[in-house]
Amino acid sequence: MRETDLIPKLTKPAQIEPDSGIVNVAMYGFGRPGIIAFWAGEGNLPTPGAFYRPVGESLAKGETFYTWQRGIPELREALAAYHTRHFGRNFSSENFCVTGGGMQAIQIAIQMLAADGDEVIIPTPAWPNYAGPLRMQGTVPVEVPMLFRDHRWSLDLDRLFAAAGPKTKAIVINSPSNPIGWCGTREDLIAIRDFARAKGIWIIGDEVYSRFYFGKDGAKRAPSFLDICDTEEQLVLCNTFSKNWAMTGWRQGWIQVPKALAPVAERLIQYNTSGSPVFLQRGCAAALEHGDAFVDQQVATARKNRDIVAETLRPLNRIHFQMPDGAFYFFFAIEGMKDSLTTARRIVDEANVGFAPGAAFGAAGEGFLRMCYLKDEDKLLEGLERFKNWLANHDPN
Amino acid sequence: MRETDLIPKLTKPAQIEPDSGIVNVAMYGFGRPGIIAFWAGEGNLPTPGAFYRPVGESLAKGETFYTWQRGIPELREALAAYHTRHFGRNFSSENFCVTGGGMQAIQIAIQMLAADGDEVIIPTPAWPNYAGPLRMQGTVPVEVPMLFRDHRWSLDLDRLFAAAGPKTKAIVINSPSNPIGWCGTREDLIAIRDFARAKGIWIIGDEVYSRFYFGKDGAKRAPSFLDICDTEEQLVLCNTFSKNWAMTGWRQGWIQVPKALAPVAERLIQYNTSGSPVFLQRGCAAALEHGDAFVDQQVATARKNRDIVAETLRPLNRIHFQMPDGAFYFFFAIEGMKDSLTTARRIVDEANVGFAPGAAFGAAGEGFLRMCYLKDEDKLLEGLERFKNWLANHDPN
Repeated sequence: MRETDLIPKLTKPAQIEPDSGIVNVAMYGFGRPGIIAFWAGEGNLPTPGAFYRPVGESLAKGETFYTWQRGIPELREALAAYHTRHFGRNFSSENFCVTGGGMQAIQIAIQMLAADGDEVIIPTPAWPNYAGPLRMQGTVPVEVPMLFRDHRWSLDLDRLFAAAGPKTKAIVINSPSNPIGWCGTREDLIAIRDFARAKGIWIIGDEVYSRFYFGKDGAKRAPSFLDICDTEEQLVLCNTFSKNWAMTGWRQGWIQVPKALAPVAERLIQYNTSGSPVFLQRGCAAALEHGDAFVDQQVATARKNRDIVAETLRPLNRIHFQMPDGAFYFFFAIEGMKDSLTTARRIVDEANVGFAPGAAFGAAGEGFLRMCYLKDEDKLLEGLERFKNWLANHDPN
Repeated sequence: MRETDLIPKLTKPAQIEPDSGIVNVAMYGFGRPGIIAFWAGEGNLPTPGAFYRPVGESLAKGETFYTWQRGIPELREALAAYHTRHFGRNFSSENFCVTGGGMQAIQIAIQMLAADGDEVIIPTPAWPNYAGPLRMQGTVPVEVPMLFRDHRWSLDLDRLFAAAGPKTKAIVINSPSNPIGWCGTREDLIAIRDFARAKGIWIIGDEVYSRFYFGKDGAKRAPSFLDICDTEEQLVLCNTFSKNWAMTGWRQGWIQVPKALAPVAERLIQYNTSGSPVFLQRGCAAALEHGDAFVDQQVATARKNRDIVAETLRPLNRIHFQMPDGAFYFFFAIEGMKDSLTTARRIVDEANVGFAPGAAFGAAGEGFLRMCYLKDEDKLLEGLERFKNWLANHDPN
């Protein structure tokens, strides 16, 4: 049978779902000699030995059988202890399920909370992997564009709330945000919580970059829904080991839910990956228990690199950005750039540097490029130098 | 908020999907001192060192970053080579995507092929994890009960085909089958292929137990759709590293699709686990490349154990079963048993032996219990002895 005959025989969303623009550029540039890639959301360091050595030990002990589908008790206890340590109150392991990455946590959240025809609100620019899996299950992602004015992104709460209609089941709040580094204030989060309570809808919180926070209040982490919500309300938090502990390739994360939802999440995990390998969970537990100093060091690197990038980009003509308050991305506009995907591919060809196209993050992101700056300093400087030269000699269109 | 207030705020399928009966008994009996558990579908051996040592080597080399979401080229090439070796013709790596277990392969297959309101046909008794994820996405699993007569299960093809209506998108064929050990003949598979072609519907093939085959034809593996289908037709095969290579806890598998579907499967993988860890894929490649002798030894153990179980059960009053032609389960009826879940839990309490309840495998499975027999011989004999004594002294109801 010919390819063209097979695709129409798939479900409608499977036929039409486009590739992520990030993946598009990454696949375009992947493997080019000497390319400096800022497109992916990961740092420069491999996983430290202290986190991966327990994997080998566990394998050698024969921990290679089926296990608890919501995660081994030791890791769920370690998650509770980690949150108790960093969020200033007591957490119970009963609110945590281990997932196959933060992405799987998001998929499970939306499978629980929104069905075919329902709506989920997403402020944009936003990571495209919220809208993608929603579309694939027939749920409608409703974008609420944030405003970029005077070098500052802002979320208009009235506009956010006005987007909620009778079919709305949840609001996705990513703070600190990928790609723009926006961080909701405590007051923002309270207003969103109160609105969600009044409407009886869910908050899907993504606070993956919580520790990567450079707010002027000097705090060690960003404001969190955990500061202001009960554990037993309509809040589901999706998280990952990827960013804090240099474990992007491990594909391990967790979902934090009201106790009543834990068996539901567990059933969805069963019908998906049926749980995480015990031996990987041993490594994850080590990261939670012994990883605080490593995270502090990563955050310090991120802060230093952020300042380097800002100092390089600020004097450039045609470049506009908000100084990010968190996460590890710059999201910068090139004045007059019309098609960020085309330009991002051209910059791969013409400068051997890789950025993610802003349009991948929703309509509000067109005209921008995203750069992950948690990189080795020499690569960072060299990549910025190449981009500066490119910008001086090329029209973005 | 109280638990009872939260559950009605979930999607309908998430509210009503029951626990698997297998998990129910396993959780009931898990951790009891001295229990001999035959409920799970896994063997007695941990993963051999030859398969897990590459994991530690890869971690030490720093292979801990994001990678190809459809799997690293080396593993996809190893899958092609493995199939070329065992299925007697050439296979291309372009037809394979690596998944987070065979279960995730099934989830991705059904997300591609059937939507809300569509129907998928499943001969039963069948592993409950086909119907579960279908229900969770609003697709209707249509059971076609197989017939147990004269100690033999048979699949009535006319009845199978009669179940296909205008909403039917796919037929699931699991051969060798879990739980009954049924194996489709080449003629069965041809008839199903021809029917699917004529109707333009998909075959979802689960040939996970292909190598565990005890057919009278002396072949080293069961008849396969790969013997009789083109790679570019409406066939999706879901598979796993779990059973052949003692890697149940690894949660690694693969999906074999027409080339046109590989980018679609990759997108669904992206929105789920976003790929498998490179370091686990190194271990999976080692299993494919160096694991043939291990599989042969496992199959020999399974065959020997099968005969032991048959010789023990055959003389017993009230016990009926088909001698399995493949896989590593006995599915046996206890005459007069009305509720297999209740009885399975009673046998945990009264004999300290664990079986999976037949009702978990569909209506056609009520009255039966499933036993995984790929166990250490001393445990197998002790467990059978306990069951014999229980049967002699208890009524099943």
